Amino acid sequence: MNRRQMLKVGGAALVGAAANTAEAAHPRSALSSHVEQWNVFEQTLSGPRSGNPFLEVWTRAVFRREHREIWVDGFYDGDGIYKIRFMPDEPGTWSFETDSNAAELKGRRGAFECIPAHAGNHGPVGVRDTFHFGHADGTPYFPFGTTCYAWIHQTEELQRQTIESLRGGPFNKIRMCIFPKWYQYNHGVPPRFPFPRNGEINDYTQFNPDFFRHVETCIQQLRDINVEADLILFHPYDHWGYQEMPPEVDDRYLKYVIARFAAYRNVWWSLANEFDLMRKKTNADWDRYARIVTESDPYAHLRSIHYSRAPYDYSRVWCTHAGVQDYAFDKAAEWRTEWRKPVIFDECMYEGNINSRWGNLSGEEMTRRFWLCTVAGVYGGHGETYVRGDEIENDKAILWWSHGGTLKGSSPSRIGFLRRLLEQIGAQGGGRIGLEAIEPVYYLSARRSANEAMLWYFDFHQPSYYDFSLPEDGRFKAEWIDPWDMTRKPIDGVFTGKTRIKLPGKPYQAIVFHKV
Amino acid sequence: MNRRQMLKVGGAALVGAAANTAEAAHPRSALSSHVEQWNVFEQTLSGPRSGNPFLEVWTRAVFRREHREIWVDGFYDGDGIYKIRFMPDEPGTWSFETDSNAAELKGRRGAFECIPAHAGNHGPVGVRDTFHFGHADGTPYFPFGTTCYAWIHQTEELQRQTIESLRGGPFNKIRMCIFPKWYQYNHGVPPRFPFPRNGEINDYTQFNPDFFRHVETCIQQLRDINVEADLILFHPYDHWGYQEMPPEVDDRYLKYVIARFAAYRNVWWSLANEFDLMRKKTNADWDRYARIVTESDPYAHLRSIHYSRAPYDYSRVWCTHAGVQDYAFDKAAEWRTEWRKPVIFDECMYEGNINSRWGNLSGEEMTRRFWLCTVAGVYGGHGETYVRGDEIENDKAILWWSHGGTLKGSSPSRIGFLRRLLEQIGAQGGGRIGLEAIEPVYYLSARRSANEAMLWYFDFHQPSYYDFSLPEDGRFKAEWIDPWDMTRKPIDGVFTGKTRIKLPGKPYQAIVFHKV
Repeated sequence: MNRRQMLKVGGAALVGAAANTAEAAHPRSALSSHVEQWNVFEQTLSGPRSGNPFLEVWTRAVFRREHREIWVDGFYDGDGIYKIRFMPDEPGTWSFETDSNAAELKGRRGAFECIPAHAGNHGPVGVRDTFHFGHADGTPYFPFGTTCYAWIHQTEELQRQTIESLRGGPFNKIRMCIFPKWYQYNHGVPPRFPFPRNGEINDYTQFNPDFFRHVETCIQQLRDINVEADLILFHPYDHWGYQEMPPEVDDRYLKYVIARFAAYRNVWWSLANEFDLMRKKTNADWDRYARIVTESDPYAHLRSIHYSRAPYDYSRVWCTHAGVQDYAFDKAAEWRTEWRKPVIFDECMYEGNINSRWGNLSGEEMTRRFWLCTVAGVYGGHGETYVRGDEIENDKAILWWSHGGTLKGSSPSRIGFLRRLLEQIGAQGGGRIGLEAIEPVYYLSARRSANEAMLWYFDFHQPSYYDFSLPEDGRFKAEWIDPWDMTRKPIDGVFTGKTRIKLPGKPYQAIVFHKV
Repeated sequence: MNRRQMLKVGGAALVGAAANTAEAAHPRSALSSHVEQWNVFEQTLSGPRSGNPFLEVWTRAVFRREHREIWVDGFYDGDGIYKIRFMPDEPGTWSFETDSNAAELKGRRGAFECIPAHAGNHGPVGVRDTFHFGHADGTPYFPFGTTCYAWIHQTEELQRQTIESLRGGPFNKIRMCIFPKWYQYNHGVPPRFPFPRNGEINDYTQFNPDFFRHVETCIQQLRDINVEADLILFHPYDHWGYQEMPPEVDDRYLKYVIARFAAYRNVWWSLANEFDLMRKKTNADWDRYARIVTESDPYAHLRSIHYSRAPYDYSRVWCTHAGVQDYAFDKAAEWRTEWRKPVIFDECMYEGNINSRWGNLSGEEMTRRFWLCTVAGVYGGHGETYVRGDEIENDKAILWWSHGGTLKGSSPSRIGFLRRLLEQIGAQGGGRIGLEAIEPVYYLSARRSANEAMLWYFDFHQPSYYDFSLPEDGRFKAEWIDPWDMTRKPIDGVFTGKTRIKLPGKPYQAIVFHKV
């Protein structure tokens, strides 16, 4: 962590380098200046560097404000440095006190002032109104995610490009792996490994702090451009052994990751990508991981898991939402009802042109799938897999889906258009946020609670008109939406009850009604 | 029937106008000149005109050739004229003898010479190779049907237009109702009724021969341009009582229709359109109709039934094929296997722009559905429902789906392109005709028996290449097919086993392999 990053995470006073065991016996107070609400407070401590601190030293702290106390685990960052991170969720003075099995790290006390969040900081995302999402400050959040599995394991230049592509773009969530990836188009050596390696052997008794510091940098960069980091904790696209570590290493890894990353407000936990392809793991393993994540993360970041074959049982309590790999859009509304939680079709194939069936949708079809999700009251997920003719199966090829870089497809701008529309009609006015599917009569449609807004999507139908049955007790203005041309054209009049609207006679159009 | 038509149906000697009861007591022979194989031999007889011949007089005949005898019912054509029709299925001399409860119509004998079919006459269509169709002369027949429910009840000019639109066009089958139609866009008074009407009351004790003569003219016109007439015997779009006639009238109507039409080689029987919407009819009624059709039609024309809601049980023995109204293309191959007979997705929505959900597919989607059928080893069905803005819900509007007229859509030419392709790859070389779905690995595909040809359809996928697993024991040439641009481009090389083919990187493309 460099000086600039230090300042960002709250400027906690650096205690430590000079500390010794004698000092630790006399707890000191350290009042840092200002940490913004939902930013990271970080307390750095000096401690033992002999032996194997990763295995032998534990440290944790309790943060207190008024009647509340919140326990967090600290972690060893190498070179005798220990860190404790905390995300305060309300303004005011917070105090803390450390505990440890090492005398230097025990009974250290401090306090800091949490100041209200600045305008662009809405806090972490949680479930809202059962089927949707919102930030901690009440701002609705509609996930329009993309996928760059291994972007953090690429060159610095490529990572910079990825952040620039995401900045101000249509996507407000990214699915990304912590471990490096080994897969088609992905056979490079990553610049960093999570564990020290002796030749082909991982030293699972230690972590490589540099690896995890780098992940943090990436999470922060995403946070600073308002992109949620949907962190994939395990995955099967492995070459180095990370998919079949001993259970105690899995557990230690999860706790280390949570101790380091949980204080970043934009973190989501995905236990795995295609968990069912990790043949060495049992249901009991996944249950244990879920338990560790729920117990160790004091902020209750969003939690899910992603499958390849048969759907996971997303009714499980530990899941905050379903993150499905599926294309059964006609089931989406039913699944939502069944699981009683938000559903994201995180992976419903990707726009692209590679050989693999999941990676060669046209931009039109990718766009359509986001619309199908929207009118089902659920959310879509994007990915992009374009290669040039001379890059076929070439590990030098840069595919957004894994490496990041730049977006080449035609769907992202259309997804951004839909996102802006949903942010408007899914949240304006009162009542519950988000859309819910209307039982299909003829065409797919969804509505806001209290009929604040209603959205029809005509898919491959091109009727010359449609007789909408609007609620008799409301008056509505209408707009014709062209999802591909990204146009919104007001329709003259104010409507109620049975309403005939002329339509443009071409497929993939939409009509939205706004309550007056 | 005019003189020209008479000649067409075989030039059977006209006995009758001068006949009297005395003559009938002394059976006469009448050797007509030449009736072409699978054309109509017609014997006209004079008989009673007093009382109600429709109810009181029956006549039938047995046709004999070598060891065979075939019984057919005659029918009363009004004005004291009775007719017996017969479709000979093999060349040579056929003799016949009539029977009746009227003396004048009894024991009349005759014979005619059946000459071999001319080049364009392939005989009636039947099931071939379990899942497909072929003409009686062995020529494969791949159904590419359209729908003009009520074309025969329109103006003469419109009927002429319909025939001109079909002539040389992509469609080789038409679904058409015998009874006139009352429905949206269809509220006109038909020029003829099947039964005499006294005000609003049908006289079910008689038929209107002029009505049925007109239907025959239409069937013949279709036959002359090689279009199969898929006759819908009952339907629920009714205003005049035909959907709820007394059972004995239903039965008499069926027998009359079969006596008149069965000798036309291009006739298919569809017991009903949307049979399950005819609420007055019971399963026992449908069973009885099926029994009448199978028993009364000596030629075993193709037989099916069309539903609205839940699929009919097409495994029933009387059904020669399934004619489904459905869009479950992913079920098509399974259904075919389950029912062990050909499956036609006769109604899978229509290209058009009307308000009704089933009538506003884009031309692209209509085309796509024919391709989805083809690679499932089943067949699609077309219809077209375009209205102009000023015709919305106007009974003057001319919609191909019901009235016929001219085709306006963009799918027919593409359907014709697919038909020509299938006629080539589904029949060239030896072995069983038609395609069967290959168990999907990545993309939808189908093959000819003995891998004479293999067809891949990539639907909304746009891979830049695909690794085909061709049989190791064959050598194949390949073509890239663009179903929309209607182009076929040979791909250089001869392929076997695992074969990588570069693809154009756009959706809705196809690749076909031909065995060398």
